Formats: sequence, structure tokens, C-alpha cells
Amino acid sequence: MINGSLAQGPFYVPLATTEGALLASYNRGAKACRESDAITIVTLQEGVQRTPTFKFKNVIELGKFVSWVLDHTETFSTLTRETSNYAILNDIGINIEGNILILRFEFTSGGASGQNMVTICSDRICQYILENCPIKPVFWTIEGNFSGDKKISPLNTRVRGKKVTAEIVLKKEVIKSVLKTTPALLHEQWRICVSGAKKAGVVGGGMHPSNGLAALFIACGQDVACTGEASVAVTRMEITEDNDIYFAITMSNLIVGTVGGGTSFPTQRECLELLDCYGAGKSGKFAEIAIAVCLAGELSILAAMSSGQFTAAHQTLGR
Amino acid sequence: MINGSLAQGPFYVPLATTEGALLASYNRGAKACRESDAITIVTLQEGVQRTPTFKFKNVIELGKFVSWVLDHTETFSTLTRETSNYAILNDIGINIEGNILILRFEFTSGGASGQNMVTICSDRICQYILENCPIKPVFWTIEGNFSGDKKISPLNTRVRGKKVTAEIVLKKEVIKSVLKTTPALLHEQWRICVSGAKKAGVVGGGMHPSNGLAALFIACGQDVACTGEASVAVTRMEITEDNDIYFAITMSNLIVGTVGGGTSFPTQRECLELLDCYGAGKSGKFAEIAIAVCLAGELSILAAMSSGQFTAAHQTLGR
Amino acid sequence: MINGSLAQGPFYVPLATTEGALLASYNRGAKACRESDAITIVTLQEGVQRTPTFKFKNVIELGKFVSWVLDHTETFSTLTRETSNYAILNDIGINIEGNILILRFEFTSGGASGQNMVTICSDRICQYILENCPIKPVFWTIEGNFSGDKKISPLNTRVRGKKVTAEIVLKKEVIKSVLKTTPALLHEQWRICVSGAKKAGVVGGGMHPSNGLAALFIACGQDVACTGEASVAVTRMEITEDNDIYFAITMSNLIVGTVGGGTSFPTQRECLELLDCYGAGKSGKFAEIAIAVCLAGELSILAAMSSGQFTAAHQTLGR
Amino acid sequence: MINGSLAQGPFYVPLATTEGALLASYNRGAKACRESDAITIVTLQEGVQRTPTFKFKNVIELGKFVSWVLDHTETFSTLTRETSNYAILNDIGINIEGNILILRFEFTSGGASGQNMVTICSDRICQYILENCPIKPVFWTIEGNFSGDKKISPLNTRVRGKKVTAEIVLKKEVIKSVLKTTPALLHEQWRICVSGAKKAGVVGGGMHPSNGLAALFIACGQDVACTGEASVAVTRMEITEDNDIYFAITMSNLIVGTVGGGTSFPTQRECLELLDCYGAGKSGKFAEIAIAVCLAGELSILAAMSSGQFTAAHQTLGR
Repeated sequence: MINGSLAQGPFYVPLATTEGALLASYNRGAKACRESDAITIVTLQEGVQRTPTFKFKNVIELGKFVSWVLDHTETFSTLTRETSNYAILNDIGINIEGNILILRFEFTSGGASGQNMVTICSDRICQYILENCPIKPVFWTIEGNFSGDKKISPLNTRVRGKKVTAEIVLKKEVIKSVLKTTPALLHEQWRICVSGAKKAGVVGGGMHPSNGLAALFIACGQDVACTGEASVAVTRMEITEDNDIYFAITMSNLIVGTVGGGTSFPTQRECLELLDCYGAGKSGKFAEIAIAVCLAGELSILAAMSSGQFTAAHQTLGR
Repeated sequence: MINGSLAQGPFYVPLATTEGALLASYNRGAKACRESDAITIVTLQEGVQRTPTFKFKNVIELGKFVSWVLDHTETFSTLTRETSNYAILNDIGINIEGNILILRFEFTSGGASGQNMVTICSDRICQYILENCPIKPVFWTIEGNFSGDKKISPLNTRVRGKKVTAEIVLKKEVIKSVLKTTPALLHEQWRICVSGAKKAGVVGGGMHPSNGLAALFIACGQDVACTGEASVAVTRMEITEDNDIYFAITMSNLIVGTVGGGTSFPTQRECLELLDCYGAGKSGKFAEIAIAVCLAGELSILAAMSSGQFTAAHQTLGR
Repeated sequence: MINGSLAQGPFYVPLATTEGALLASYNRGAKACRESDAITIVTLQEGVQRTPTFKFKNVIELGKFVSWVLDHTETFSTLTRETSNYAILNDIGINIEGNILILRFEFTSGGASGQNMVTICSDRICQYILENCPIKPVFWTIEGNFSGDKKISPLNTRVRGKKVTAEIVLKKEVIKSVLKTTPALLHEQWRICVSGAKKAGVVGGGMHPSNGLAALFIACGQDVACTGEASVAVTRMEITEDNDIYFAITMSNLIVGTVGGGTSFPTQRECLELLDCYGAGKSGKFAEIAIAVCLAGELSILAAMSSGQFTAAHQTLGR
Repeated sequence: MINGSLAQGPFYVPLATTEGALLASYNRGAKACRESDAITIVTLQEGVQRTPTFKFKNVIELGKFVSWVLDHTETFSTLTRETSNYAILNDIGINIEGNILILRFEFTSGGASGQNMVTICSDRICQYILENCPIKPVFWTIEGNFSGDKKISPLNTRVRGKKVTAEIVLKKEVIKSVLKTTPALLHEQWRICVSGAKKAGVVGGGMHPSNGLAALFIACGQDVACTGEASVAVTRMEITEDNDIYFAITMSNLIVGTVGGGTSFPTQRECLELLDCYGAGKSGKFAEIAIAVCLAGELSILAAMSSGQFTAAHQTLGR
């Protein structure tokens, strides 16, 4: 049961996995949410980046080039509109280090995940720059490995795809009846796990969002190679004054699409349609469903660990 | 063509993906290697971790508990042997912060990827500790989120699964004929991309190992949710005195299995058998094949970008 | 000899240290630069942040609060002008996670390093918000530990204080006569050191900018507790076509002041005056001198290590 | 009042700073501790590293070199003893990436901070290896920038200098009377600040340990350029069942010395003698005092912020 800005109501979510314990665990988490309250979800930000990089004879040349680029940003927007029906150029970031310039083009991409779309648009813009700007770089490349594509970095905590936050208040009765633990134990488990992640230097601090996302991505024709970056999650749990549990999860790299890529294969399309998430303009809704799945999975694994059921679950439930 | 410590000779590698450009790119990288020299691969380290965490009344109690634990490490090895035919306990790490103790149990796991196996063994050891140690923790959990499971952290650069390094010298003629670029352009592209990753704070600095790994993991019944952690890679390129290219890739989290999990499903098993990688004792060989795939993929994408073919490839080759 | 946007010409720089080897080393690096070319320096960005943080009953309340805040940004600029003669509010960043909102106020601070100035201005703005906004937070604090103050984080690579980049081309003859090494050895040493820093996960990748900065900060009345954050540096070295060395250093957290704080004590003021850097409007110039010092120090230590002189220097030159 | 493994009893700690608010704040924190309980401190680990780095023709050559090195570790211990009266070689780490080998030599250094001592010992060992090992590297350097010297990295959370943990239970009455706040507000402030640091990607998560350390390091002749690395701190706060506050701080890079370097200058020596920390064998005690100072400072600033006094303090107390 989701109360999102785009996704509203109850959803049956298809997951493709070979691990039985995982499905049971996500189900249990979803049940605990359902019996407590709706999950409130807000989409905060959206953007897919490409980061073409240019090298110059020296920093003086670079400076002149940047000035020219900043004078032509409207042209870049026009070129983007000419190149794609969906892409919109929203922001241009400037990163300078010695004689190297990284331009960060940030687009929205309609319902597509957008990696290819923004490559093609950025290439068009770069070709225009190279032809028209009087200052010529000594080397350039369409991607300087600064966009976060297929990688995890602290930069990812800004946005890549959709940045979404979700929260729920879990009732203490439900924590006992469904999650088989107590608010105090659940909170202690979360607190220790977030502290462990921090000590390990993990970017984000979830438990296992990649499990749910991998299963959802395979079922719904997403790019499975993005599972790593997409699963960066910040979680937070608190005991409320009523001794219930407040739980929030924020994911900044939900790079998903509901059109293009693997979404049009028959089974994958069927899965998306089951969620009413197939086609243009549906990727925001799909991202909100994805974070709800992860929220349920985080709660369930924390509950299992807090009450010592985690090992038992893995021994009982086969694949 | 691989000259590894475990994998030797030529291999045909099955990849499951919906992206045509990706297959073409990996093929091209593999061809460039094949025509240059064998890829030399060395497996450096092996280990799967579970990190049970204990909390005490205060740091004094914790100190007594640690002393007791360090006096019983041989018992823990015995318990491990009794619990699993494959798991071997190789190392126990101690991490203390105030009144919280994280024990890092590190195992080898035969041919299995081992996450469940080490959970069960660690649980057995913890149960023994809790029953027999006179000092009782106020809270404990089988996993304090410090093991790196399903997550990317700088700790991952130590080892999780297999740590493997691979190198090759690419001939300048092959760089021209197969990769359609020059040693100087290829090197410049790598240099800019590694610098971009560093600026973004990426852990590791590869281009897109997750593409190849996701495709290989799906085909061969691996845990796709581990794609993120597994794809952490350090790459290095240099121009040799002969104007050839030295290229090395090191991956520290190749958490793969050739027995258990999804490996026994018919198609997946077939794919593993094609590589002679099905069954106990084959996971090291499979890891060496996996890194060879990634090496080929890194070279190909860098070559494409260095010569401006990257965007064109994505426009021409559909899915 | 500096060719900066603000600092121009030759400078004698006062350093306070107890280590003889360090002074000799920085002198040597400066000499190598002087005999090669001027150091070109460009100031890229400027800003000091305070990050007040607000917590709400739920994310819906938070959303209404953010809307109100975004409608009153002009008032915040006015309040800033009323509170300080120097501070200018340039940017407001929004960071949301569940029911927690971090506002990032970014100011310029005239010639002061500005930490206290921005605290006072931010407090004034927050008081205004709390009094006037109909939505009330359940908790708020003037600083949510997100500003980077006295800490090192990847966020620091954006800007804190001044972001400055500097470059020089070192002549091969000077590398031989002054630095007692060769372009090839120097480049190999840099390449290995930047790779080592990357493997260790260091933010930035300099060798020892903190040595020069600590000595300069003590001499010139800067906040020595900021040495850590200020010394984050990205360095890059390349061999040019003429077999000379291109070297660039970029520092994004040069948080320095030429008015206020410890700058008005007699000795410290004298040191600043020696550089013509005392008083309002001089902090940009001082930052450019600081990065020139670090550039010289990096070159010298890399040269010493590349030719095996490093240990010898520490044995010969006492403190 | 300290209950440490090495430091016992009450101490008057000299701090050199130009900021009045800072002294007042640290005093208040110390008073709150004194009136609540002793600070319990445990030194967990000790070690100073040097990381010589070797490059080979290929990874096969490297493998043979490593074998030879591992067969001669006892000789390295002997060489260390011959070179220094204080240094003891405790551990040798192996890090391989392609054809590059980083050896991490870890020493204890008596009462000295030890950076120069371990450089000289490592150099002696490396010279021995280079003369005697039949496999010759194509390049080597005494330091591959992997030791953490003068830098902050996640590796620092292991140990550099001393790793020390400290804890205290603060009484609710004292929190009210001395710190002018409540357990609930103090805890909320800490919780938000640790979450902010995590979102920013800060290594460690203290508020301002560098303030206290910089002042202590200047007063006591320490290497001020190490303030950044030394101030990495993990803090943790909890409300106890009695509604008191449990607070712990763990610092893993307290690289300090009580002999050599700047410790023998008259004023600095006097400051160390005031703490009975001058001379060989006293650096452990000094590290325990240093962490107690930081603990007091963290508590005080968190208290001030939680009750809105932070800005006021900076406006009232001049420098």
C-alpha cells in the first residue's frame, strides 16, 4: 500500500529470483507495512548525466573555452530538443582541474532510463562545440568517467535517475505479530548495522536493497548492470513517543525506465503492465514502487536479525 | 586465451544481455587480446566474511569477552569443520569501538560463493560463545553490516570472494587493426577516465565491469545482487618502450560459485559446463574467466571512446 | 614567481616549522619552478557553508516547509546584508532524507575565512524562518555536520573557502640540475603515488600539502585546525612532447582569511604584510600563494623519492 | 579525570589557541565529565607504517620477488633492530595490483611519533632486498603513498599511531546543570550530526576533534601537519535506561610522540612535563589524554548546538 506522489494504492510486485528466503522476507516486510500504514513516498529530484571531458594546451585556453560554452547554453538546449523527443537538458556543471575540463550535462529522459539517449544528445552538443568554438582542445572524449554510470561514488548521493524518499510508522503490535521482534530490538539492530556500514566506509548504509532491486530489475526488463549504483540507500529508524517505529529510506540512484531497453520483451512488458508501469511517463511511478520494495526488504531483514531468525530462515527455506 | 593460475587456454564465454552493442564490444576486446598475447592472471587471495557484532555494558566487559574469544579460536575451527564439509575458518578480525565489538570471521567456502555457508558456521560459533563465555553481551547479532555483503566499500578492496589480478601487453598493430585507435589515444582516454573516477570518489576505477559481470552472472547462475560489489576494479594502463600498451585489471570482490545457489538450474549449469566450471573446486577458475571478460570489456570501451566510436556504436547496434 | 589571477610576481613566503628537511625541500621545489616558468594560477570558485538542519513530524510537513523557504530566499539575502558587512548569500542547497531537511547556505565572506560570520548570518536567517514559517520543525540545529567544517569528505572537492588550480611546465634541464632526477623517474614516482593514494581510498591524492599549509597557517595566523580539510589536493603530472614535465595541482578547500581571527596578532600580521596579504579583500591572493607553496612542495618530495634522496634528507638535516 | 590503561587520575591540559570560545567549550565538557564519572580509555592497537612500492616487468616476476621477501622476514626484523633502538617491525602487508607490489611495513616506535624512524628502517630493509634478491624491480620507491601519512583515508580507520577508544556515562543532572541541555536534546543533536557526516561522506564522524588536537599539538610540540589524519573519530551516543547519556569516541590515528621532533623545545617540553608525558615510553599515555580532550570537546559542542547556544558563544567570547 503506497501513498506516493506518482504511485498510489496497493501493488503486486513481480520479483525474479532463485532464493526462496528472499521472497518470503520481502513478503513479510510488505505485510508489516500494510498492516501499519501506507508508505509515504516523495520523488525529490531527477536527472541522468553524461560528462564529456576536454583537455587543453593550458588552463588559460581552457578558461576561454569555458566562457564560450557558457555563452551557448541555449543552443545546447535547442540541439537536445532536435536530437530527442524526450530528453531535456536541465543543467550544465563545470569541473576544472589544471588543463582538464569536465562538463556535466544533466538531462531528464521521459520514461526511459536514458543512458543511451543522453549519450547521443551530449555527442551532438559536443560536435557542435568542436566545430564552432574557436578554442580547440588537444583531446576530448564523450565520457570522462565522472557521470557515475555503472559505478558507486559519493557523487551518487546527489541524483542519478530518480532520487526518492519513503517513510512509514510501523505499529508496535505489528512489529510483534508480523515481524516477530520488538521496537527496541529492531532499533538496536538497525543502529548497529548503520554503525557497521559507516565503519566499513560503505556509501549509503542499507542492508540489502540490491537483493530486491536485482529481482525486480530482471523481472521488469531493467538494466541489471545498474543494480550496484541503484542500491545506494540511506536508512534511518527511530523509536517514536508511542513506542512505534519510524523508518525512512532514501535512494538517490534509481535509474529505471518503462520504455526502451529490455522493457519491451514480452515477459518483462507483462510485469511492467501488471504494475501499470509500461510506457512513456511511467518511470517515476516505477521508481516509487521500487523504493517501497526495498523499504519492505530492509525492515524484514533487520527484524529477522534482531530476533536471531536470520540463520534459521536460510537453513529452512531452500531456493 | 587465458594464462591463469587456474584457468588455462581458450574459452567461449556465455553472456546473457539484451544489449547488442555490449556483446560486440566485449567480442572486439577479446579479439584484440587474442591477437596480442595471452592474458596472465593470478589469484591473490580468497575469503568470505561474516561479521557478528556484540554490545556490552561497557568497554571493560568487552575486553574480558575478547580475551575469552581469543583463547578459543581452535574450538571455532573445529565447530566450522563439524558444521560444513567445505568451509574453513582462516582468520578472525577484532574491531572495537566503545562497548561494541565486531568479530570478522573469514572463511574459504570450497566451490560455493559461500554467503549462506558462512552465516551458518558463524551462527554455530556464536551460539557456542554465548553458551560458554562467562561474559554475556547485552545485545548481539549475526551480522553487523561490516562484511561488505551486497555493498561497496573501501574495505572491499581487501578481498571478498576472490581477489584476482590480470595483465596483458597489447601490440600496437592490433590496437590499430582491431581496436581502431592508437596507443597514445587509448592511453589518454584511460588516463582521463581514471582521473574522472578519482574526482568522483568512485571506489575502484573501472569503466563498466558491471556490464560484463551482470551478463555472465545471469547466464551462469550467480547471485546477480552481488554485481555491484563484484565489479569494483582497479585498472592501470601504460605505454611500453616499444609503444605497445600494458594493461592490468585487479578485482578484489569476485564473489562467485560453481556449486549451490542458482548454478544447478539446467541452463545455468550448461553454461558453467561449457567453461568446464561446474562443481566443487571450480570457482577459482570461474573467477579468472570473469576477470578476463572484464579486461576485454574495459579495453574495448576505452578504445571506442578514444576514437569517438562510442556514440556511433550505440546508435547502430540495437538491442 | 606566480602568474595568478590575484597574486602576481615573486613572493618570499614565511613558514613556521621545526623540521629543517621540510624548509629545504620546499625551497628546492620553488627554485625548480622559478627557473622553469611562472606558475599559472586560477581561482575557480569561492564559498563558505553552514548547514542548518530541521526535523519534521513527517515528510509532508517537510515539503510544505521547503516550499515556504524557497519563497523567501530574497529575504534571506536581505537578512544577511543586515547582519554582516562582508557576507553575501550566494546559494541555498536542499537535501532531504525522510523527515530531515538540511539547508546548505553558501556565502562569500570578504577577506575573512568566514566560519563565524556565516554561523551568525545563518542563525539570523533560521530565527526568521522559525518565527515566520507556519510549519514548525520538531527539532532544529544551526549545523547538521554537513558543511565540511573541520572535516574531510568527498563533498569537499566541490568548494570550501577557495577552489584554486595551478599549473607549470618544468624544463627537463631544471629537473636534472635542481631536482636531481629525470622527467621519466619523476613521472613514474608521481604515477605510483597517485595510484597508491587511490588504492588507500584517500580523498584527493597529494603527497604532503599539509606540511606546507601547517607551516604557512601557523606563521600567518590562520586556523590550524583547518589544515586537514585545506590540504585535500588533486595532482596531475604528464610528460610533454618536449620531454618536459607538466604538473597541475587543484585545491578545493583553501579556507583562509586575511582579516579577523588570528591574523591581527603582531607576528602573524607582519607575515601577512610581507606578502601584501593583510586586510579585507586579500584572502584570494593569499590562497593563490598557498597553492603555489604546495605545488613546490609536491614537486620536491616526488623528486627526492624518485631518486632515492628522501631518506638521506631526513638523516642529514636535523630539526 | 581519566581511568585509562596508561593515563590515570586528573590532568590539567595545556592548549594553544587564539579562540576563546574554544577553550571555554573544552573546559565545560571536561567539567561535565568530571562531575559524572571517570572517562574509561583503552588503547587498542599501535603501529606506524611505511609502504615501499616496487614495479616489475610483469606479474610473474613480481610473484617470485614476493616469495623471496616472505622467506626473509626474520632478517628484516634483525635489520630493524640494528638500525634503531626503538623501532620494532611487527607486520608486513602485501598488496598486489598487476605488476606493482606495495609492501606495508608496520612498526612500533617507542615514544616517538616515528615517521622518520620507520622511513630509515624501511630504507635499510629495502636496500638489503635490492642487493640480495635475484629478482630486480624496474622501479622502486620508499613510499608509494599508501601509508596514510599526512592524509585521511578509510584505511586510517585501522591504525596509524595509536588506536584508542574512550567512553563515559554522563549523568542527567550534570547534563542539565553543566551542559545546559537535556539528554533527549543532546542525543537528537548527535544523531542528526552523525547522519549529516555520513551523508557528506566524511571519514569518521566527529564534530571538531581537530580544534582540540591542533591546540594540544601546538602546545606539546607535535607535528601539526598530522592534525587532519589524527582527528578522524567515530563517536556514538545512546540514552541509557536511567535516562543518562552513554558517549563513546574512538580515534584510530593518534600519531603522537613524547620524544624527538618538536618535543624538546623548552615550552613544548614544559607542557609535556606538566602532563608527566615527556620522554620515551610516554606516547601511549599522551594519546589517552588527547582522546579525553576530544571527548570533552565533542560533548560540549553538541550540547551547545542542541540548546541553541552555539552562535551566542561565538558572538560573546572574543579571541
